[in-house]
Amino acid sequence: MYASGFQPFEAIAIVGLGLIGGSVAKDVRRLGLARKILGYDNNEEYHKEIKSEKLADYLSNMPDKKLAQAELVLLAVPVKSFKDILPLILPNISSTAILTDTGSVKSPLLKMMCSHDYENIRFLGGHPIAGSENFGPSAAQNNLFFGKRCIITPEEKTDKESILVVRRFWESMGAKVSEMDPESHDQMFASVSHLPHILAYACIQAISNTDSHEALGHSGAGLKDFSRIASSSPEMWADIFLENQEKLLPRVVAFKKVLSSLEEKIKNNDKKKLVELLALSKTARDRWML
Amino acid sequence: MYASGFQPFEAIAIVGLGLIGGSVAKDVRRLGLARKILGYDNNEEYHKEIKSEKLADYLSNMPDKKLAQAELVLLAVPVKSFKDILPLILPNISSTAILTDTGSVKSPLLKMMCSHDYENIRFLGGHPIAGSENFGPSAAQNNLFFGKRCIITPEEKTDKESILVVRRFWESMGAKVSEMDPESHDQMFASVSHLPHILAYACIQAISNTDSHEALGHSGAGLKDFSRIASSSPEMWADIFLENQEKLLPRVVAFKKVLSSLEEKIKNNDKKKLVELLALSKTARDRWML
Repeated sequence: MYASGFQPFEAIAIVGLGLIGGSVAKDVRRLGLARKILGYDNNEEYHKEIKSEKLADYLSNMPDKKLAQAELVLLAVPVKSFKDILPLILPNISSTAILTDTGSVKSPLLKMMCSHDYENIRFLGGHPIAGSENFGPSAAQNNLFFGKRCIITPEEKTDKESILVVRRFWESMGAKVSEMDPESHDQMFASVSHLPHILAYACIQAISNTDSHEALGHSGAGLKDFSRIASSSPEMWADIFLENQEKLLPRVVAFKKVLSSLEEKIKNNDKKKLVELLALSKTARDRWML
Repeated sequence: MYASGFQPFEAIAIVGLGLIGGSVAKDVRRLGLARKILGYDNNEEYHKEIKSEKLADYLSNMPDKKLAQAELVLLAVPVKSFKDILPLILPNISSTAILTDTGSVKSPLLKMMCSHDYENIRFLGGHPIAGSENFGPSAAQNNLFFGKRCIITPEEKTDKESILVVRRFWESMGAKVSEMDPESHDQMFASVSHLPHILAYACIQAISNTDSHEALGHSGAGLKDFSRIASSSPEMWADIFLENQEKLLPRVVAFKKVLSSLEEKIKNNDKKKLVELLALSKTARDRWML
């Protein structure tokens, strides 16, 4: 499972020990990817669990002087918190350390990192495509990233060593790493992730608004699977929708256009055209599943 | 697994031996619910499989004189085909036989059954909430209905014995049977089943329209589960959307209203309200999952 040539870190810092950060901590520990894990989490309710699960060798509320020991600093906090946490990292991070993250939206953080204050930090964005509708350190699990995709988003000023180190870090946990520019990443995930999430939330709300409480209980596996992502963290997803609104909102508009076209075919009893449109979707999905 | 008091039929007829009809046939055979299965399917490509899977003791393209032997006639064809198949059933069905179906939309068939031609047939609508995105006799499976809900939709003229017999038939296969009037059924399923299906189809189409082919490949488990139902049979779902359009289209409108409200909160950067709305959906779904 070990990517060839991966040198364990003396110390790694993980800021945010929820589902993603906690699962990284478990793999780092289990696979020996670092000799020491410095953990930071400002949610004190999580501290007991973080300690009992041994997710960190050192635990504090917020980045402090100890952070200077870390060769890799992993930001695994909600994307909206980046702007609050970066000023706390800046005075403490080692000039040789690499800073990376796990956020679902890449452009806003990159924008911050390009500002004068942060220009000397070695930064590379990352996004492991793994998760679940559960959250918090109790949801952390071994092997969460094994076989999953992880996208890293280098740009012009990213140094080659950072790319190599971060790539190998994720590969050591079994992830399939690919590179994409931050803008394309946000464009694509607006479509394949953020759009389905907003639709799932809206569908469940539309059903609860108009039907009795029993309605959901009468549904089958279809709606259960379809709406699983509507059980995800509202806080985290509100942040993602807001951070990536520039890319997401046009996708919602495009979706509504497709939906209107299906509605029109139904109203016109145009079965032939309706079957054609549904078949296009089925073909696209089936091809993807191959 | 046997519901107490269930009397096996001498003969049952199953019209349409796809996923649902074929799975009923398997359970009838395995559980000894009838001594003979008369099978009808106008798709000749299916006949080889129906025979090799022993889904019927007698197999023909369309309802014929043999049908008169059946004490229970189960229509498991797409809802849109009811109007073509009923005239073939009418001259052959025994006057004491019970006719039932498995369609996802209940009112249109009931309307037909209330017409003068069919008024002497003992009819009771049924809808097992079971299925998968796969279809055809090759998708048929044992125990498909075990632990699943099955709704039967009696109305004024339905005789009590028909209700009892059909209820026990599904209960013998392990289904949890409940009664609902056909109108309420169609109203509810427009919402918990037909709406999510149209959204899943539309979402996949919106993504394929605007993104490169790779886009879907980069997505995670979220979209996979969300869109599973978009791999369902286009023919069957076009029929359901068309048959239940009177109930479905207002649900699509209600959904679009909710979606617009989420869009508005995003545009206004109203995080507080956005989190509130998403949390409502999460709560509704989590309560349902308990």
